[in-house]
Amino acid sequence: MKLSSILQDSITLKFSELAREKSHKGEKIISLGLGEPVFETPQPIIDETVRALNNGYTRYSNFKGLYELRKLIVDKLTIEYDIVTKPENVIVTPGAKQAIMLTLMAILEPGDEVINFNPCYISYIPQIKIAEPTSIIHNVDLHKEDFSIDWDKIESLMRRNIKAIILNSPHNPTGQLLTKNDAERFVEIVKKHDIYIISDEVYDALTYSNMVLYSLGSNSEIKDKVIIINGFSKTFSMTGWRIGYLVSSNNHIIKNIVYLQQHLNHHTCTFIQKGACAAFGLSSDYLNSYKMDLKERASFLCENVASNEKLRIVPPQGGMFAFLDISSSGKRSDDFAYNLLLKKNVAVSPGIVCGKNWDDHVRISLCAASKEEFEEGVMLIDQFVKDI
Amino acid sequence: MKLSSILQDSITLKFSELAREKSHKGEKIISLGLGEPVFETPQPIIDETVRALNNGYTRYSNFKGLYELRKLIVDKLTIEYDIVTKPENVIVTPGAKQAIMLTLMAILEPGDEVINFNPCYISYIPQIKIAEPTSIIHNVDLHKEDFSIDWDKIESLMRRNIKAIILNSPHNPTGQLLTKNDAERFVEIVKKHDIYIISDEVYDALTYSNMVLYSLGSNSEIKDKVIIINGFSKTFSMTGWRIGYLVSSNNHIIKNIVYLQQHLNHHTCTFIQKGACAAFGLSSDYLNSYKMDLKERASFLCENVASNEKLRIVPPQGGMFAFLDISSSGKRSDDFAYNLLLKKNVAVSPGIVCGKNWDDHVRISLCAASKEEFEEGVMLIDQFVKDI
Repeated sequence: MKLSSILQDSITLKFSELAREKSHKGEKIISLGLGEPVFETPQPIIDETVRALNNGYTRYSNFKGLYELRKLIVDKLTIEYDIVTKPENVIVTPGAKQAIMLTLMAILEPGDEVINFNPCYISYIPQIKIAEPTSIIHNVDLHKEDFSIDWDKIESLMRRNIKAIILNSPHNPTGQLLTKNDAERFVEIVKKHDIYIISDEVYDALTYSNMVLYSLGSNSEIKDKVIIINGFSKTFSMTGWRIGYLVSSNNHIIKNIVYLQQHLNHHTCTFIQKGACAAFGLSSDYLNSYKMDLKERASFLCENVASNEKLRIVPPQGGMFAFLDISSSGKRSDDFAYNLLLKKNVAVSPGIVCGKNWDDHVRISLCAASKEEFEEGVMLIDQFVKDI
Repeated sequence: MKLSSILQDSITLKFSELAREKSHKGEKIISLGLGEPVFETPQPIIDETVRALNNGYTRYSNFKGLYELRKLIVDKLTIEYDIVTKPENVIVTPGAKQAIMLTLMAILEPGDEVINFNPCYISYIPQIKIAEPTSIIHNVDLHKEDFSIDWDKIESLMRRNIKAIILNSPHNPTGQLLTKNDAERFVEIVKKHDIYIISDEVYDALTYSNMVLYSLGSNSEIKDKVIIINGFSKTFSMTGWRIGYLVSSNNHIIKNIVYLQQHLNHHTCTFIQKGACAAFGLSSDYLNSYKMDLKERASFLCENVASNEKLRIVPPQGGMFAFLDISSSGKRSDDFAYNLLLKKNVAVSPGIVCGKNWDDHVRISLCAASKEEFEEGVMLIDQFVKDI
């Protein structure tokens, strides 16, 4: 591929250097930056992985993944979203990130056009360009006041020849969910214009509002056009394990992705897959207390922000993040993040990495620090902004 | 990418179906097909991985890999091949397969030309096409009588604009090593024509002849043009783990591959990397007995073949395979493999999957079965051929 045309320099280098410098000096940094839960992977998953390691699950296995794991994934989709699918239509990958990458590689052809909503997950745009360097990306900004979808813009883009739309609900970084109305409109668009939906649902288990979560894969009318992406990193604190999956009723896409998987990965690590099976057997207490914690942290953040006239927030409904409007602070997001780290030892992610028009926001991770540190970090942000 | 233009149907489907059918019936099959050692991953590697799992190596880590592991890889290269490099120039990947894939993605641009020797590892050709669908592959056959390199052909291709050459020594499937003379000629070519060498050295620890193994990465004159590929699967029976690495002195290539790694994988599983560190601390008995076993099996095979006038073999010097000339049997390789499995319950790989002109060979894996089964399998091949 013509990689030279798509490489982007990281704009957070200066920030990373400061973080490293502070860390070398032994200064305590409160991390509200990373998308990584502060707590450890649940013990039953570790125990099952150790058992697998000791019982010979160290050998080559199926390109698609262990049948046992794929069956558990199918059962989850059926129980939670009424999705009818089969283990043959599931492919386990080394991370949800790579599930998105393989999907894009399988779908996109030269000159294809893709709709991507901004702000977005940091890898979507590079991934589209890696999958197909000649692709055309239409970055559609969410409405700034409430992060809702700009349907006028979407409708106007339907005059073009759009191949795929990337959706993410619960959303990184805004914490918003796709509404029922949005879901229905996407179904209509897919039916009318023959467009693929890549539905990134990695935060699906982490909703903590009374809104219903819609998975577009559950609509049987468009099932051949939807690829569901999910993983274990966020829900089960398995970030370093690198395991995710994709599901599609479209056998042609599944066949193409298996071909790519065969020549990129062979398969995902066998004993990790076996360990991941244990995630499905965890008690419901685990997720309930995780979600309660997220909800409490989101409330703390929103209440704190409400008392600061230079900050504004749209309350998140799910996922791990909130997206803080810092436009009244007068600072650009990377400058804000750099100085917050410099002066208060609190790390957040600048909004600019989520999209070029989002330099007036910063991303706050709700669960990357302990509760005490999180609350301290939020109060330090408040002080920092008041001092500007 | 235009995947539809590069997808190939597997020609071994009929074979796989027969194997599955026999397996379902409970028939014992002797596998001389797979590139997977019959023995288990060494216990110290499993133990270290379990320790890492229990000690929090479950979190995000460096895109390039754990520093500790990259330092051990550098030390190995320095000690064994006198290669001067740094941990910054090593990238750990989910399998050596993906190390090759990422290298090709980083190097190839539209229309670039690549030299690939046939017979070859099954993934090279698909990988080149996945990395750059418009690339031009020059498949150069090794000489049939001794698997030596066709230098006339290589010299004639130097009139074209070649971007990269893929080398593999010890070689899959022939078991041959690059000679000193070959290595020197490749160095001259690289210097003169500014060509990259992708040097797949996954079998480097498994040489069992008195030939010296040359790593092209050790030549300082061309160090910016060589990318060394290696992994843990074959040497440490870690096939299902998916861990490999690449090394290059070329900082531009390293930077580009880190970019790809960031958006494809994030990194390789953290606790697996920690476990792999233990491979470098294994006693030398481990490799010595492994190589002795390979040498004895290769000798047994060659002696057996010598007494069969319809078979011919070039004795392998290293790696896990031998490539058996079946041209005098009058059978095509897939037909040979299918009927051998049908009649004798012995599985081998048809040569045609290693290159289109190699339908007169089959690949024998030296260590995929126990020693008793291996010897039984070799004798059954002998009987099968005599019965044709």
